[in-house]
Amino acid sequence: MRTVTKDNITDVFLGYFGKDTDPRMREVMASLAKHLHAFARDVNLTHAEWQKGIEFMEWAGQISDAERHEFVLLSDVLGLSSLVDMINSTPEGTSSSVLGPFHISGAPDIPFGHDLKRHFEGPVLLARGRVTDPDGSPIEGAKLDIWQTAPNGLYSSQDPDQDTYSFHGIQTTDADGRYGFTTVKPVSYTVPTDGPVGDILNATGRHPWRPSHLHYICTADGYRPLVTEIFPDDDPYLDEDTVFGVREDLVMKYVEHPADTFPDGFDLSGKVTEPYLVADFDLRLVPEG
Amino acid sequence: MRTVTKDNITDVFLGYFGKDTDPRMREVMASLAKHLHAFARDVNLTHAEWQKGIEFMEWAGQISDAERHEFVLLSDVLGLSSLVDMINSTPEGTSSSVLGPFHISGAPDIPFGHDLKRHFEGPVLLARGRVTDPDGSPIEGAKLDIWQTAPNGLYSSQDPDQDTYSFHGIQTTDADGRYGFTTVKPVSYTVPTDGPVGDILNATGRHPWRPSHLHYICTADGYRPLVTEIFPDDDPYLDEDTVFGVREDLVMKYVEHPADTFPDGFDLSGKVTEPYLVADFDLRLVPEG
Repeated sequence: MRTVTKDNITDVFLGYFGKDTDPRMREVMASLAKHLHAFARDVNLTHAEWQKGIEFMEWAGQISDAERHEFVLLSDVLGLSSLVDMINSTPEGTSSSVLGPFHISGAPDIPFGHDLKRHFEGPVLLARGRVTDPDGSPIEGAKLDIWQTAPNGLYSSQDPDQDTYSFHGIQTTDADGRYGFTTVKPVSYTVPTDGPVGDILNATGRHPWRPSHLHYICTADGYRPLVTEIFPDDDPYLDEDTVFGVREDLVMKYVEHPADTFPDGFDLSGKVTEPYLVADFDLRLVPEG
Repeated sequence: MRTVTKDNITDVFLGYFGKDTDPRMREVMASLAKHLHAFARDVNLTHAEWQKGIEFMEWAGQISDAERHEFVLLSDVLGLSSLVDMINSTPEGTSSSVLGPFHISGAPDIPFGHDLKRHFEGPVLLARGRVTDPDGSPIEGAKLDIWQTAPNGLYSSQDPDQDTYSFHGIQTTDADGRYGFTTVKPVSYTVPTDGPVGDILNATGRHPWRPSHLHYICTADGYRPLVTEIFPDDDPYLDEDTVFGVREDLVMKYVEHPADTFPDGFDLSGKVTEPYLVADFDLRLVPEG
């Protein structure tokens, strides 16, 4: 009879793997069990705490659906999502940052110069730049999937007053690798706190704020997909993003321009009466493999 | 601006705690993040693997309900449940073992000598013993919550053909600390494999079998609750219980007795025509505090 003890249970677990287990599956599961067991031992986890953890996971499962992904948010506030981003980033390319739980598929194609702001109130932001390879050569035909919150701090999927694809769009770069659109300046906002993740933040004395940002997913044939965000350098939550998404190369200055001149390809004549902001940001993709 | 890197993210996480955070909450969450981050670093977790993990958790949430607790099963097959049991066991008392996902509350009170087997087919098992303190003094009025599968390997909550409390009952010990009942000999059975935990077992080449057992929860005023199981020493899965529940002191011999004699208080005259089995097992409870 095999006697399992608190000292040998990790080894017993490793001994249960089948001979034909995929080596990577074995590596990941072995490390997961090793660290999970070490956690329980380090803190002498009690039955009541274990029970609380189980109830937490069940609640996170119940509150999740096609549009709300509480386990993503949990991974985000624990820093796991950002860590995975950083582990898989390479210095030659633009840093990746958290996908977050609010990306939706199927956003409409938008032309260069498109206005995502439409009738919404708030400062105008003109975002533009180039998608290049690590040497700075333009990538034509790259797809840039763009999404952000409305001025009320809500993504369209959280807000019954917005259309499905409000503040969402996919742009294709031209021969110079250029993208460009106008929108409303993003706002700082809070992650959802009405579920189990909100309870964790509350119990550990953490605020739920994220610095304002534009989300980008950039893809191009032959290059690694890039999931990232860009941040203005004057946001008050830049030092303590509750999901750890800020990277040095993703922080930039939004530069003020006078209201009466717009670059070629952008036409907001008559719609802009105050100075507007420009975010110039180039994305460097890394070849696959 | 605080630059979060893959090397400092664990420290940044620890720095986010509010000043008034409960010290135990801080200890548990800090250790959890430390080990979770170490896991991701050790295996260089990819985005695709992270995504797979998120989908796994969402599926586990979707398949869980009041009667199915997939996160408990996940904890069980990862060895976490057993480890928590062992961390919180003391050598003066009977070892604890996994609660499992199938305990239900509100089982009926049953008198000494009660027959849980009723009309079900299978070998008769007479289970009896005493509940004592660590010195062997009897504990009167202890409650023993008993549950097991039917001969088909299913708990009542898994089986529409069984009553809610089929093979469930709560017995109260007498002045000598005694309990005793008859039932059908438990069978080895498989944990549910139609959910995400089944996929893990399959992907790691593990079987889903548990050695046969009787579940007990024993409680008494002034003593720590004991959640445990007892196993016969001839079960083929004793060496590789898929939930790691076997402990040396919980394994025992089921002794065969002739069909024509029953101990006082048990009356199966006319119902038993073949030799029956007796499981003598004493439970030692540890005082609280």
